Amino acid sequence: MKVTVLSGGVGGARFTRGLLSLLGERAHVTVVANTGDDLWLHGVRVCPDLDTLMYTLGGAVHEEQGWGRRDETRRTSDDLAAYGLGWEWFTLGDLDLATHLARTELLRTGLPLSQVTARLAERWAPRVTLLPMTDDEVETHVVTADGQEIHFEEWWVRHRATLPAARFVQTNLATAAPAPGVLAALTEADVVVVPPSNPVVSVGTILAIPGVRDALRTSSAPVVGVSPVIGGAPVRGMADACLTAIGVETSAVAVARHYGRRPDGVLDAWLVDERDADAADALRSEGWIAGAAPTLMTDVPTTARIAADALALVGALP
Amino acid sequence: MKVTVLSGGVGGARFTRGLLSLLGERAHVTVVANTGDDLWLHGVRVCPDLDTLMYTLGGAVHEEQGWGRRDETRRTSDDLAAYGLGWEWFTLGDLDLATHLARTELLRTGLPLSQVTARLAERWAPRVTLLPMTDDEVETHVVTADGQEIHFEEWWVRHRATLPAARFVQTNLATAAPAPGVLAALTEADVVVVPPSNPVVSVGTILAIPGVRDALRTSSAPVVGVSPVIGGAPVRGMADACLTAIGVETSAVAVARHYGRRPDGVLDAWLVDERDADAADALRSEGWIAGAAPTLMTDVPTTARIAADALALVGALP
Repeated sequence: MKVTVLSGGVGGARFTRGLLSLLGERAHVTVVANTGDDLWLHGVRVCPDLDTLMYTLGGAVHEEQGWGRRDETRRTSDDLAAYGLGWEWFTLGDLDLATHLARTELLRTGLPLSQVTARLAERWAPRVTLLPMTDDEVETHVVTADGQEIHFEEWWVRHRATLPAARFVQTNLATAAPAPGVLAALTEADVVVVPPSNPVVSVGTILAIPGVRDALRTSSAPVVGVSPVIGGAPVRGMADACLTAIGVETSAVAVARHYGRRPDGVLDAWLVDERDADAADALRSEGWIAGAAPTLMTDVPTTARIAADALALVGALP
Repeated sequence: MKVTVLSGGVGGARFTRGLLSLLGERAHVTVVANTGDDLWLHGVRVCPDLDTLMYTLGGAVHEEQGWGRRDETRRTSDDLAAYGLGWEWFTLGDLDLATHLARTELLRTGLPLSQVTARLAERWAPRVTLLPMTDDEVETHVVTADGQEIHFEEWWVRHRATLPAARFVQTNLATAAPAPGVLAALTEADVVVVPPSNPVVSVGTILAIPGVRDALRTSSAPVVGVSPVIGGAPVRGMADACLTAIGVETSAVAVARHYGRRPDGVLDAWLVDERDADAADALRSEGWIAGAAPTLMTDVPTTARIAADALALVGALP
């Protein structure tokens, strides 16, 4: 059985860990990761979502934090701050920096990000095929209400998403292509899962890569999503600020409608939290496959159960 | 009084520290640094000699080691080794890495190395004007006896200069230009000093930059050198391997003759160690200004005395 997941960082990584726990050897999982948060920082290439996936699935993640390495230190970045060049708000942990340096070295040899990612993942053995959404440098920028354009990470990490955002733009989008394997992972899967990642700047960015949305719309695989919104608030992070910026209400039902139902949209089924049972009812009345269940990913067994509930919605539970 | 020093790493940095201790506020010192050892490593620009100068003159150097930062750690590089990409033999200290990252960030904004160096030096206040020999990427490579061409640092650090070297080549030399300020520092100085740096791959590389040798040959300033060879062996490092590669004997007198006396060569005067008094005699008989004195740079006061002896040879002691 082939399962493909479209993932951002922490939420998608934790969901995929639960999925792997559920499926064990019974399935091969491919994760298509958002790389819109990637940035060149001090000359090195940082890929936040790929790293979070690699560390989480490879057992090296800082568990409480949800991203970065366990037992991380900040010797280099503390010293770097003394040069006063800015971007001190972006944490470059000493261990994480090793990954950035290794990635940059490999990129500088001319390898595309997808091959670099495969090479880095050898160390962490994440038990999935980990694919960047694209080998091109597509970066999400935020156009603020006062017309400034800043990198998404600056808006997200430095300003904690408090600067009013007018819209999100992706650089190089027109000429970008899905990384090798991405379209096949969508069209040849037995089921595609959209985990509770940020629907705007994580999954939304993956879907914006030319060809991806159409591949998902027309894939013969069922597509099931898990709501990242519970009781009118994002489970984690500041997805509400992203939804507000694009005019979508922060509710389980609004996010489902934003993704849309196939063939016009990209989903067949939507799993909401038990607290949002009325959202499932409303969606079902519109023709969706929808379910309500506990969806807080508090630990791996709980998350495995959430993954089971999602797969069961589309009859894809092995 | 204006003093210009042509420097490699440890030897030149220690000599300059003594010179500053000697001169205090009575002189302005400009250091033209070899950048032939520079390299791109894991995407960041490493400038070994500039860093050694900056740390030594800024009071941050690892004193026993002679290069790198005091209280250095290797958290990042130890972790990087787990990716197995090679170059593990090149130490990237966590604190030193901050300098490389800051430099790379500034270079990526389009600033030339000379301006980047000035910006980085603001933090360390090295009490000199610190100039790279060139803003161009001129790198010293070693052609080994079996015809391989490797970066100087690979030969020097990884192979400890034990691979037989056929010759040294500098990349991009033909199109390289001295950095802004370098030629003026040579022609407008009151005295130019060649410290006990490696005459082949440090000072020799600086002299190879188009225009530098001629500026030194024709400068109205006296030029005095201090022998890096004492009693037939280099004071530090493996300069003998470099001298052997270019067919120069490892002796105080041979190094002087290799530099040559102006106007054909670049020196007027040569200070040798007291153990090499016969070398001074031999050079004097050939028309050189030469002196013999203790030249082991054991501490700052001793080094200040060596600097005084060197300046005195050409009547430049203030």
